[in-house]
Amino acid sequence: MSSPAAPVVVAGPALAFEQRVLDAMPAIEHWFRHQWHEHTPPFYASVDLRNAGFKLAPVDTNLFPGGFNNLADEALPSAVQAAQFAIERTCPEARKLLLIPERHTRNVYYLQNVARLARILESAGLEVRIASLADEIVAETTVSLPGGDTLRIEPLERRGGRLGVAGFDPCIVLLNNDLSAGTPSVLRDIDPAQVLLPPLHAGWSVRRKSQHFACYDEVAAEFAQLVGIDPWMVNPLFARCGEIDFRDGAGAECLAQQVDRLLAAIREKYREHGIRQDPFVIVKADAGTYGMGIMTVRDASEVESLNRKQRNKMAVIKEGLRVTEVIIQEGVPSYETVSQGVAEPVVYMIDRYVIGGFHRVHPDRGIDENLNAPGMHFVPLPFDGSCNLPDTHAAPGACALNRFYVYGVIGRLALLAAARELERTAV
Amino acid sequence: MSSPAAPVVVAGPALAFEQRVLDAMPAIEHWFRHQWHEHTPPFYASVDLRNAGFKLAPVDTNLFPGGFNNLADEALPSAVQAAQFAIERTCPEARKLLLIPERHTRNVYYLQNVARLARILESAGLEVRIASLADEIVAETTVSLPGGDTLRIEPLERRGGRLGVAGFDPCIVLLNNDLSAGTPSVLRDIDPAQVLLPPLHAGWSVRRKSQHFACYDEVAAEFAQLVGIDPWMVNPLFARCGEIDFRDGAGAECLAQQVDRLLAAIREKYREHGIRQDPFVIVKADAGTYGMGIMTVRDASEVESLNRKQRNKMAVIKEGLRVTEVIIQEGVPSYETVSQGVAEPVVYMIDRYVIGGFHRVHPDRGIDENLNAPGMHFVPLPFDGSCNLPDTHAAPGACALNRFYVYGVIGRLALLAAARELERTAV
Repeated sequence: MSSPAAPVVVAGPALAFEQRVLDAMPAIEHWFRHQWHEHTPPFYASVDLRNAGFKLAPVDTNLFPGGFNNLADEALPSAVQAAQFAIERTCPEARKLLLIPERHTRNVYYLQNVARLARILESAGLEVRIASLADEIVAETTVSLPGGDTLRIEPLERRGGRLGVAGFDPCIVLLNNDLSAGTPSVLRDIDPAQVLLPPLHAGWSVRRKSQHFACYDEVAAEFAQLVGIDPWMVNPLFARCGEIDFRDGAGAECLAQQVDRLLAAIREKYREHGIRQDPFVIVKADAGTYGMGIMTVRDASEVESLNRKQRNKMAVIKEGLRVTEVIIQEGVPSYETVSQGVAEPVVYMIDRYVIGGFHRVHPDRGIDENLNAPGMHFVPLPFDGSCNLPDTHAAPGACALNRFYVYGVIGRLALLAAARELERTAV
Repeated sequence: MSSPAAPVVVAGPALAFEQRVLDAMPAIEHWFRHQWHEHTPPFYASVDLRNAGFKLAPVDTNLFPGGFNNLADEALPSAVQAAQFAIERTCPEARKLLLIPERHTRNVYYLQNVARLARILESAGLEVRIASLADEIVAETTVSLPGGDTLRIEPLERRGGRLGVAGFDPCIVLLNNDLSAGTPSVLRDIDPAQVLLPPLHAGWSVRRKSQHFACYDEVAAEFAQLVGIDPWMVNPLFARCGEIDFRDGAGAECLAQQVDRLLAAIREKYREHGIRQDPFVIVKADAGTYGMGIMTVRDASEVESLNRKQRNKMAVIKEGLRVTEVIIQEGVPSYETVSQGVAEPVVYMIDRYVIGGFHRVHPDRGIDENLNAPGMHFVPLPFDGSCNLPDTHAAPGACALNRFYVYGVIGRLALLAAARELERTAV
């Protein structure tokens, strides 16, 4: 996607701790270098951020990012370079890579993401083929994409312990499928000599947001100490409920209690920081969302009196997938706008490197609502929004580059939390 | 420097072996990964290339690149990322870096290069200070640059075995000074715990072009076998003379002989490849040039009958520096033009990564002449000229991205030759 011709105005509040982050930059980068010696970053990730000015925090960390098509073309060289680095680190002998995307082969935006990702990996010097888990792909299938590109998708084959497609035995298998429908048996117990990235336990059949944010609690505390801020300024409070059934109302009491406690805790923090606003929380499935089944709640009574439509919406987030565990997360209002639509930054990373990002914009949603919903669109950060070009000489708050650098720092905090999370959840 | 507003037309011949390189891309990248395990790349480098269509070859490899200001802004994110990688590899504990530039503090273009380089290193998360070897810098000096930037230059201090500036003890000392005037004693025998990059023997008081191109011979042979081409297609023939004095004519016979033999060898290669052109050679100092003291020669008789002006021009390339050793290099005609001026690509690398490049353009010079001369200007490659975004689906010769990718490959071959050269010349 090219950058739009008209200049895009990204408006937003001055970030309270931007200057502290910039001043601590050498310490922060030194700390990250040390962290990456201790913890292995995932192959790739995207992180949704919310910027309230008084607070900038990750609200979702995706280990199977599906929006590479939304990055500016200018992000590609960095992406290729980072992919080369990741390959060298994980499997320097690799020549061939098999990419396994989501099953939905009719979503043209998603397929553009797959094409973009394949191009990045090819440019990094790998032979790339694409294999589908979908039953309807029984033979090589060529999909035409807008702009004249085509995507060749082949049926996944398993030969003994190895995955491949016809005549192609890859060294690396890269999942762009978040396994929220469970881990298919074809992916299990593969030959250890074939590198499967990310590992199966990064899929949503194993992963829990609450586990991620528990790791993030630690990372945020360490970072906050380094920079000299309250960790809350980069960290959304959260709670969880494990035994919910929205259809029959089971667990509603737990949910109402946790909502109540969390709202009280946020109110306390708001008081401490002199923020005169009404707090809110977000209730969402603890495992995968696609932006579905997400609820903004301002009072515990709201979850006690859900109507049928609301119950149904929360109960099932994807065909056949019942929600039984939820995370209740501090709502971080988004005061950023792009062309007057409420916007949230999304940061993309390959290995330890921030390679770019975009704003997810929803013109019809409020500052306290989930923006990952039909009607949203994406505006790539300008090329210098690659988040590694701070201008340390600019006046505080005056420079978009500095805001983008801070996005990249917070994105990498979430990446580090994911690295620790995957260590702990490894079998 | 921003990209110029008017579209720049880069015209040039189809490169004879472009398709072979693209087809072999996974093998090439795999081979490079292996090479970088065996050989450590220099911290940074720039390589001048000449593209004759039938041949694309490096003609000069600079281990103290001085044109970072000529890169497009769009190259910065990749440059920062590569610098982060280089720091992590060479000195992960580093927080502070001291940059030692050339002494000439009045060349505003060079100072813009220093400012650009400092910004890249700062953005990679280092605290950067700049120290001068020049005697006239006796106190902190602030230089104003066009565009409002300033550059702070401090006198270099040595405390025991460590280099620094007042109140600043760096982990890394990075030279952007090619030491062609000799290695100052202040840089010798420093504390091994302080990392000096590149090593002193990368300076022109030790380095010889002929040693570099002897290493390049090996690299080119290995690469040519991998890709299935005649190594000559990426490698300029060369010879050397070691005891020259242009002023009194000493060594003129050696020079004439070598010119004659080299011209005969090129003629033979031209015959073999069906190239109907008159060959030429370039005579230049074996140690450093700055584009000075470079001669195009089409016949041995020309070096036998140099007039006084030509002798003087060749004899001394920099104040006080007499030329006693020369390299005679196969001349590679440049058939690339930018806005109708003869142009040669210059590729920039940090660590193992190509981060960008530009065309050196000289409107008044011929296809067989040195372009590194007063009157030249620089046109950055477009952002996608970062040389790592080949379009493997494009028709042969039709895509600038693919030409840029090949530039990047040949640039990295020269980088690899430099890595091997530095291994062999290390004391």
